[in-house]
Amino acid sequence: MLRLYHHAFCPASRSVRIALGEYGLSAEFIEERTWERRREFLIVNPAGTLPVLMDGEGTAICGPRPVLEYLDETRGAELGGRRLMPETPRERAEVRRLLDWFDIRFHQDVSAYLLTERIYKRFMTVEQGGGAPDSAAIRAGRANIRYHLHYIGWLAGRRNWLAGEDLSFVDLTAAAHLSCIDYLGEVPWDEFELAKAWYARVKSRPSFRPLLMDQLAGVAPSRTYVDLDF
Amino acid sequence: MLRLYHHAFCPASRSVRIALGEYGLSAEFIEERTWERRREFLIVNPAGTLPVLMDGEGTAICGPRPVLEYLDETRGAELGGRRLMPETPRERAEVRRLLDWFDIRFHQDVSAYLLTERIYKRFMTVEQGGGAPDSAAIRAGRANIRYHLHYIGWLAGRRNWLAGEDLSFVDLTAAAHLSCIDYLGEVPWDEFELAKAWYARVKSRPSFRPLLMDQLAGVAPSRTYVDLDF
Repeated sequence: MLRLYHHAFCPASRSVRIALGEYGLSAEFIEERTWERRREFLIVNPAGTLPVLMDGEGTAICGPRPVLEYLDETRGAELGGRRLMPETPRERAEVRRLLDWFDIRFHQDVSAYLLTERIYKRFMTVEQGGGAPDSAAIRAGRANIRYHLHYIGWLAGRRNWLAGEDLSFVDLTAAAHLSCIDYLGEVPWDEFELAKAWYARVKSRPSFRPLLMDQLAGVAPSRTYVDLDF
Repeated sequence: MLRLYHHAFCPASRSVRIALGEYGLSAEFIEERTWERRREFLIVNPAGTLPVLMDGEGTAICGPRPVLEYLDETRGAELGGRRLMPETPRERAEVRRLLDWFDIRFHQDVSAYLLTERIYKRFMTVEQGGGAPDSAAIRAGRANIRYHLHYIGWLAGRRNWLAGEDLSFVDLTAAAHLSCIDYLGEVPWDEFELAKAWYARVKSRPSFRPLLMDQLAGVAPSRTYVDLDF
């Protein structure tokens, strides 16, 4: 049995949850609050980050990109034509470039600001970095997301999916980030029609459905979060 | 002909330069000062980051991990037993975990502080973020490197190379970061014997030699930078 250390509102964890859905794999899910820096978890992943996939034989696969590559290497062939990593080295490099873009750049520009201020801080003690939301950080996230939605639209307008002709890990990762932000109602969809149309296609996949059930105590989802016709 | 956009004191660029040396590949090297945000470069890599490898047929491979994976996928087989990515999915996941560790974590904890303050700022205008070095940032980098040297020693004490039994991209990447810091004389080698012994092994490889010739105008290399018996 696979086991996934994750957090419901950690985008990187969500990308793996969607991927598991695409593979038809089930897993035991364990919520990890990384800001608590739990000793047993740091032994598993010294970086203290999510997600971590335990492969059922005691090996920990740490980090979103290593986990996705591992899933492709160990289960990709079973997906046949629906494989989430393309075949050629150049196409694979494009997937990896965009995984870095969303996991690192989008995260730094947008997710880290909005999710930390509006979600994680609610669970943190003052020593862990908790407290009142920093409105300057929230403003930065809100400003930065526009550039990224523009880029997503630019990609989606030129390709069938974000990294090329086929659905790939990039679509899952980008949508995972946006889904967390969308829960908070912080995505200005109506100004970015191309990005919205792309997101609607990912959101309607069965693999995405479990994410739409996630609820955060004390923060209701936005009006559009669950709606497939947002 | 391969072409590499790089900077002599960008650790991620250095990791690719060492890898090219291991493969016995030559390339045309173009220095890019990313802080200038040159328009033509941003068209090649919208992230504005280094390194970027042009594969000779107009395709840009962007980012250190995508470039290394691309080199393995297109040239790895030629290396035979000296391949820099291991064979099994688990070993590969360990390489990828540690590439993230050094490219992202070590960079954020150490390289970004020390290289920005002591090297990059010298070339930047005030508008680009230049100016006098921030001594608090330098102190942070100096404090954080100790934890990383300890971890490198811990890994090197348990394995032949950092990610396992064989030399891998992880050794090249970790050594690339340390080499930039070492140029500045900011690595307290004598307190970390295991890390030092591992670094001496990487440093003595022929692929590493070109890096030891790099000179920075106005900043002399540390006494130990070139010395293989440091």
